Amino acid sequence: MSIAVLFGSRSFEHEISIVSAIAMKDIIKETLVYIFIDKHREFYYIPASKAKANFFSSGEYKKCEKLELKNGGFYKKSMFGQKKLEFDFLLNLVHGGDGEDGVLASLFEFFSIDFVGPRVEASVVSCNKYLTKAYAKNHNVNVIDYKHFAKNDTITIDEYPVIVKPIRLGSSIGVSIVKEQSELTYALDVAFEFDDEIIIEPFISNIKEYNLAGCKINNEFQFSIVEEPQKEEFLDFDKKYLDFNRTSKVQKADIPAHLEFELKQTFKKIYNNTFEGSLIRCDFFRIDEKIILNEINSIPGSMANYLFDNFNKILKDLSYSLPKKKMVNITYDYVNKIQSAKGKA
Amino acid sequence: MSIAVLFGSRSFEHEISIVSAIAMKDIIKETLVYIFIDKHREFYYIPASKAKANFFSSGEYKKCEKLELKNGGFYKKSMFGQKKLEFDFLLNLVHGGDGEDGVLASLFEFFSIDFVGPRVEASVVSCNKYLTKAYAKNHNVNVIDYKHFAKNDTITIDEYPVIVKPIRLGSSIGVSIVKEQSELTYALDVAFEFDDEIIIEPFISNIKEYNLAGCKINNEFQFSIVEEPQKEEFLDFDKKYLDFNRTSKVQKADIPAHLEFELKQTFKKIYNNTFEGSLIRCDFFRIDEKIILNEINSIPGSMANYLFDNFNKILKDLSYSLPKKKMVNITYDYVNKIQSAKGKA
Repeated sequence: MSIAVLFGSRSFEHEISIVSAIAMKDIIKETLVYIFIDKHREFYYIPASKAKANFFSSGEYKKCEKLELKNGGFYKKSMFGQKKLEFDFLLNLVHGGDGEDGVLASLFEFFSIDFVGPRVEASVVSCNKYLTKAYAKNHNVNVIDYKHFAKNDTITIDEYPVIVKPIRLGSSIGVSIVKEQSELTYALDVAFEFDDEIIIEPFISNIKEYNLAGCKINNEFQFSIVEEPQKEEFLDFDKKYLDFNRTSKVQKADIPAHLEFELKQTFKKIYNNTFEGSLIRCDFFRIDEKIILNEINSIPGSMANYLFDNFNKILKDLSYSLPKKKMVNITYDYVNKIQSAKGKA
Repeated sequence: MSIAVLFGSRSFEHEISIVSAIAMKDIIKETLVYIFIDKHREFYYIPASKAKANFFSSGEYKKCEKLELKNGGFYKKSMFGQKKLEFDFLLNLVHGGDGEDGVLASLFEFFSIDFVGPRVEASVVSCNKYLTKAYAKNHNVNVIDYKHFAKNDTITIDEYPVIVKPIRLGSSIGVSIVKEQSELTYALDVAFEFDDEIIIEPFISNIKEYNLAGCKINNEFQFSIVEEPQKEEFLDFDKKYLDFNRTSKVQKADIPAHLEFELKQTFKKIYNNTFEGSLIRCDFFRIDEKIILNEINSIPGSMANYLFDNFNKILKDLSYSLPKKKMVNITYDYVNKIQSAKGKA
């Protein structure tokens, strides 16, 4: 089987996407066809042997063949016309902008390319923290309380500490913990640097955290182990991004069966049916016996491979179980009716 | 000024998009550059003189020049390479699938094409009735109560009449009013024909309905008149689609100033900031003095031109006030750090 791994693009997480993509070499036991999107949003075909981090940071990738995206696939220029790049399906590994906000999903949808990754709706719902909360609440899943603010709003905080987050970025980019009033202005400046809208949540320390990854294959859920992530008070960008480089297995969290069951039930409520076609990781909090959704990673770092025993098989099986679009039957009955009403038919 | 009018595409509303696009000839006093997307999702450049409904239904459009969408614009084949199709901005007039679900918005975003129309997030929020409700509730806007069901759910109804709607389609496609138990199975079959998820709402007759269109230009809202649509118990597809053909002005609803004010305030809550760059029509109900959002038309039929005195000016002004994307500064600091940690730098 051959799998196209798409990575890079115009995203704050551009370089960690590169790291995630390279990690796949050790994880996926299939032929990998690397497609890099550079910051100008040009597509390049990268031979697997060249997929090393400094090949991209140095700009050397520009010597590789450019690809054009058109109906049905990616095309290389060849001596006579164009040649289609062959692969069985595409794995979207573009983290953050373009990859997780629905833009690339739309391109694959429009140009009919089979892919593993969140569809447009799932992307929008998971990459905007405000919409994630609305979506989760609508599915009867608990979320942390929050206030939503736009750039020119008056922002007053009654109780500290709080956590300030740009609404659209993944990871910890632009996120600050604010312990007292005097730190607020700086934290707001940082967050508004990245987005015109933010959310502010109470910051609760010593929360129990649980991560669970999974997907739905032929109407059956396939779950990873539950991980209890090792954490400091707050994972900074560098620490958090070790995940993207991660290929060795982690320890299963030592939790009672009923808690594992509850986490899985909550995961299902979130996944169904919006996230079909994707393998996601949900990060949960547990406060006072309640399971609370913190965030949905619709393209988790290195695909959360380290949480699965059989990642390669799950990915392949998922690729055989991608959601099919409804057929749209286009007729011209209405136009013909108008024409005949006008006496022009 | 020259405006590209994009229409057609793989949508249940394909043909009414054609009707909407043709209506623009009488409405927009600028040079129109027509771009048709056929059901195979191929782009065609259509000379304005040929933009008549039966040109598309007959298949004659296939004789027109094909266009390729690439970074920066649409390109025609020319004798020596390719020639860019020139226009000042693009008006997205693809109703329903592709146009209003975020797919085409993503293409314009990715390939850097200035356009008037809903962005990806706004599209997803407005085209999925379930997400519209979640979004509205989160913005403290009232919605009609509802139950959400997926294809294999057990569906029981306690109180009739109800209205059954596929969650993702615009207009009245697949929608039924169900007055008693015996009619339910058929209505469900129809709705599930179009979508795997539906919502069921109580059907309330004799509701007051108000439509209001508008957009934000340089941080100021520009509103249409408020229309009180003439209605039967339930507008069927054909009647509803007269809007798409509509170019003559309608009468302003005879309502008190405080109600108009309230409708506008509610519109602002919905529009801000997600719908920037688009001209939308919100359809409201009024029940027991409460304003209730029924639906958001992110690309209303014939752009709701008939509700504005100065549609041409508003459209042009809006095109000068499109949302700008945040710059994404791509660095390779993290990759370089890993490299040097590995002793490879």
